[in-house]
Amino acid sequence: MAGMILPRLTALVCLLVFVGTDAGAAERRPNLVVIFCDDLGYGDLGCYGNPSIRTPQLDRMAAEGLRFTDFYAAAPVCTPSRAALLTGRYAIRSGLNNVLFPDSKGGLPQSEVTIAKALKAAGYATAHVGKWHLGIHEGQRPTDHGFDSSLGLPYSNDMDANERGKGKARDPEPPLDGFDVPLLRDGKELERPAVQTTLTQRYTVEAQRVIRANTDKPFFLYFAHTFPHTPLFASPEFRGSSRRGIYGDVVQELDWSVGQVLATLRESGVAENTLVVFTSDNGPWLTQGLQGGSAGLLKDGKGCTWEGGMRVPGLAWWPGRIKPGVTSEPASTLDLLPTLLTLAGALVPTDRPLDGADLAPLLFEGKALPERPFFYYRGTRVAAVRIGEYKAHFFTQTGYGAAKPEEHTPPLLYHLGRDPSEQYNIAAKHPEIVERLIKARDEHQSAMQPGTVQPR
Amino acid sequence: MAGMILPRLTALVCLLVFVGTDAGAAERRPNLVVIFCDDLGYGDLGCYGNPSIRTPQLDRMAAEGLRFTDFYAAAPVCTPSRAALLTGRYAIRSGLNNVLFPDSKGGLPQSEVTIAKALKAAGYATAHVGKWHLGIHEGQRPTDHGFDSSLGLPYSNDMDANERGKGKARDPEPPLDGFDVPLLRDGKELERPAVQTTLTQRYTVEAQRVIRANTDKPFFLYFAHTFPHTPLFASPEFRGSSRRGIYGDVVQELDWSVGQVLATLRESGVAENTLVVFTSDNGPWLTQGLQGGSAGLLKDGKGCTWEGGMRVPGLAWWPGRIKPGVTSEPASTLDLLPTLLTLAGALVPTDRPLDGADLAPLLFEGKALPERPFFYYRGTRVAAVRIGEYKAHFFTQTGYGAAKPEEHTPPLLYHLGRDPSEQYNIAAKHPEIVERLIKARDEHQSAMQPGTVQPR
Repeated sequence: MAGMILPRLTALVCLLVFVGTDAGAAERRPNLVVIFCDDLGYGDLGCYGNPSIRTPQLDRMAAEGLRFTDFYAAAPVCTPSRAALLTGRYAIRSGLNNVLFPDSKGGLPQSEVTIAKALKAAGYATAHVGKWHLGIHEGQRPTDHGFDSSLGLPYSNDMDANERGKGKARDPEPPLDGFDVPLLRDGKELERPAVQTTLTQRYTVEAQRVIRANTDKPFFLYFAHTFPHTPLFASPEFRGSSRRGIYGDVVQELDWSVGQVLATLRESGVAENTLVVFTSDNGPWLTQGLQGGSAGLLKDGKGCTWEGGMRVPGLAWWPGRIKPGVTSEPASTLDLLPTLLTLAGALVPTDRPLDGADLAPLLFEGKALPERPFFYYRGTRVAAVRIGEYKAHFFTQTGYGAAKPEEHTPPLLYHLGRDPSEQYNIAAKHPEIVERLIKARDEHQSAMQPGTVQPR
Repeated sequence: MAGMILPRLTALVCLLVFVGTDAGAAERRPNLVVIFCDDLGYGDLGCYGNPSIRTPQLDRMAAEGLRFTDFYAAAPVCTPSRAALLTGRYAIRSGLNNVLFPDSKGGLPQSEVTIAKALKAAGYATAHVGKWHLGIHEGQRPTDHGFDSSLGLPYSNDMDANERGKGKARDPEPPLDGFDVPLLRDGKELERPAVQTTLTQRYTVEAQRVIRANTDKPFFLYFAHTFPHTPLFASPEFRGSSRRGIYGDVVQELDWSVGQVLATLRESGVAENTLVVFTSDNGPWLTQGLQGGSAGLLKDGKGCTWEGGMRVPGLAWWPGRIKPGVTSEPASTLDLLPTLLTLAGALVPTDRPLDGADLAPLLFEGKALPERPFFYYRGTRVAAVRIGEYKAHFFTQTGYGAAKPEEHTPPLLYHLGRDPSEQYNIAAKHPEIVERLIKARDEHQSAMQPGTVQPR
C-alpha cells in the first residue's frame, strides 16, 4: 500500500504548488465538457451514416467541429473504458479490468488521479452527471475522485433488475418498475428505482445548471449518459419519434440533450471558451437485438476487440478554436486527460505512466500526431495493437457468449484504411509489419505494472 | 411492332405541340443535371459514414442540399438500372432486364421516351457524358435517344478485356493496356483502348464544356461516371490520395469531379437555376474484394435485392430552392423522369405506364410523398416489394455465384426503419402486412406488360 500512497501524495503536493503559482490565470482557462454515451455504436448517428436515426444536433456539432473517423474508447466494456478515460491510463493500471456489479467491493482506487481531481486542484469547478460505474464504496465515488457534485446512477441501468425486470432489459418495452437502480445526488439516494423515462431530461437540466452556475469560473463537466444501454427508456416527448424504434428514440433524445448543452453554452456566453468532446464508452451491444446499436461497416461490437467493439463516434467542438473538418488521425479517450489538463494549465501527473497524448496540435492546428501504438485490451490481456493503419490481432473472441478466445500465431494483420471491415488478413504479405506490432506489444507488456486487481 | 410505333408517334406529336406553345418560357426553365456513379455503395461517402474515403465536395453538396437516407436505384445491376432511370419505367417494360455485353444485339428500343428525348423536344440542350450501356447499334445509342452530344464508353470498362486484362479487372493495379473498350464521341471512336486513368478528368472537362456552352439555354446533363466500377483507374493527381487504396482514390476523384461541376455552375451564374441529383446505379460490387465498395450497415450488394444491392447514396441540390436537410422518404431513380420533365415544363408521357412520381413536393416544400410501392426487380421477376417501412422478399439470391434463388412462402418481412440491416424477419407477427405486400405485387404483376426482351 505504501507504493500507492506515495504517488498520491506527490501528485497532491504538486497540484497545490501549481494552484499557488497560477491561480490568477483562472478566468482565461477554458471550460471542458466531455459527453460520454453508453453503448452508442460507430454507425448510430446521422453524421456516421445511420439511415434511421436523426441526429441533427450532433450532425451540426460535427459540421461545426472536428469529426474523428478513428476515435477509440480505451476498452470494449463499460467500467474499464470509464476508468481509462478519467485516468488517461489503460484500465489494467488501476486494476479495473472488468465490469463492476452492484455487489462488487472494488472501485477506482484513490491512488489514481482523475481528470476531475487534477482540474479541481487547479481551481476548476467539477461536476459529474450520469452514470459512474467505478465503484460505490467510500473512496471510489465521484465526489471522492475530484467531483464537486454528482447526479446520476452508480452503475448500469440494468444492474438492479428485480423479479419484474429480470431477463427483460432487451425488450422493446421493458417494465418501468423492473430495475431498482438508485438515482444518487452526491452519493445520497434521491429516488429508487430511478424513473428512467425522464433520466436524460433530468441529466440535461443538471448539466445546464452546472454551466449556468459557472459562467465566472472555469468548469469541467463529465456528462456520462445512461443510455443507449439497455433497458431503453425515452421521455414521452421522444417516445415514437424515430423510425428506428425505441433505440432510435433514445438516441434522438441524447441528440436533443447535446443540442441543449451546446445551446446553453452559447446562451451563457461561454461557447467560445469551451471545448466539448462527444464520444461513447464502447461499441454497440449487438446481443440486444434491435435494442442494440450498429457499428456501421465495422466488424462486431461491444465486448470484443474488433473495430466495432472499440471504435466509436468522436466529435470535438470549440467555436473559433477548432476548425470544422474531418480527421482520420487515430485518437482515443486516453488522450483526454493530457489534452484537458494541458488546456487548463493543470498539472499532468508525471509520477506514473500515462497512455494518451495531448491532442492540441491536431485540434487547433490540424497537425498530424506522432505515430504511437494503441492497445486493444480485453481484460488484462492485449488482444490487438494498432500502429498507423496496421492492426494485429493476437487473439480474437466474440464479445458475448461461451466462445473461447481464438489465439493467432502469427497474429492476424489488417490495414484499417483499405479494409475498415477487417476482412482480409494480410499477415503473410507483411511479416516485417507483424514483427513491428509484436515488438510494440511486447515492449508495452514488459513495461506494464498492473494495478491491484479490483475485486468484482 | 405497330403497337410500339403508335405510342412513339403520339409522344412525338405531343412534344411538338408542346414546344409550339411554350417555347417562350425556355429561358426561365431550370438546368437539370444527373450525376450517376457506377457501383458506388451506400456506405462509400463521408456523408454516409465511410471512415476511409474523404468526400468533402459531396459532403458539402449534402450539407447544402437534401440527403436521402432511402434512395434507390431501380435495378441491382447496370443496364436495367440505366434503362429505368432514363425512361422512368422498370426495365422489364423496355425489355432490358439484364446486363448487355459488347456483342449483344439488344439495346434501348426507340419506342421508349427517355428524359433526354422529352427535354430535347421541349427545347433543352441535352448532353450525355460517361458510360452508356444501353446498346451500341443504330437506334440504341445516346444520340438516337435524345442526346445532342455524347462522350463516353458504350458499356462497362471491364467488358473488352484482352489477354492482358482477362481476370485482372479486380486487381488493385489492373493493366493499363488490358481493356480494349473504346472512348466514343457521338458514336465515333476517339480512342481505343480508352485511357482510363484520365477518364474521370476528361468526362469532367466535357461536363464543364456543356455547362459553359449553355448559359443562355436550359440544358440537361446526364453525367454517368465509368467508376468506381472495376477495373479501377485514377489520375496521377488522385493515385494514392486515399487511405482506402485505389477504390478510395477513384471515389475521391469522383468527389473532386462533382465539386468541379458545382463550381462551374456557380461560376457560370446558373447554380441558382440548376437542379443537380447525385446517385449510383446499384450497390457495391462485393465480389471485387477491396476493389469493391461498401453498403455500410445495409445487407449484401450489387446484383441482389437486399437493401445493399439497390439502396444507394442520393443527393439533390439546388441553391435557394432546396432547403438543406435529410429525408427518409423513399425515392428512386424512377422518380427522376417525372420530376425533371415537370420542372422543365416538358410533356410527361401519358401513353404508357410510368413507375415514378414527381418529387417536387418533397424537394421544394419538404412534404411527404403519397405512399406507393417500390418493386425490387431481379431480371424479369419481382423479388421484393417495399411499402412504407415494410419490405417483403418473395425470393432472395446472392448477387453473384452459383447459388439458386431461395423462394420464400410466406415472404420474409422486414421493417426497414427499425431493422435497416434486414436481420429480423417479422412475417409471422404481421400477416396482414404480408398480405398487403403480396397484393401489391400481384396487382403490379397482373397489370405489367413486359416489353420485348432485348437479346443479350
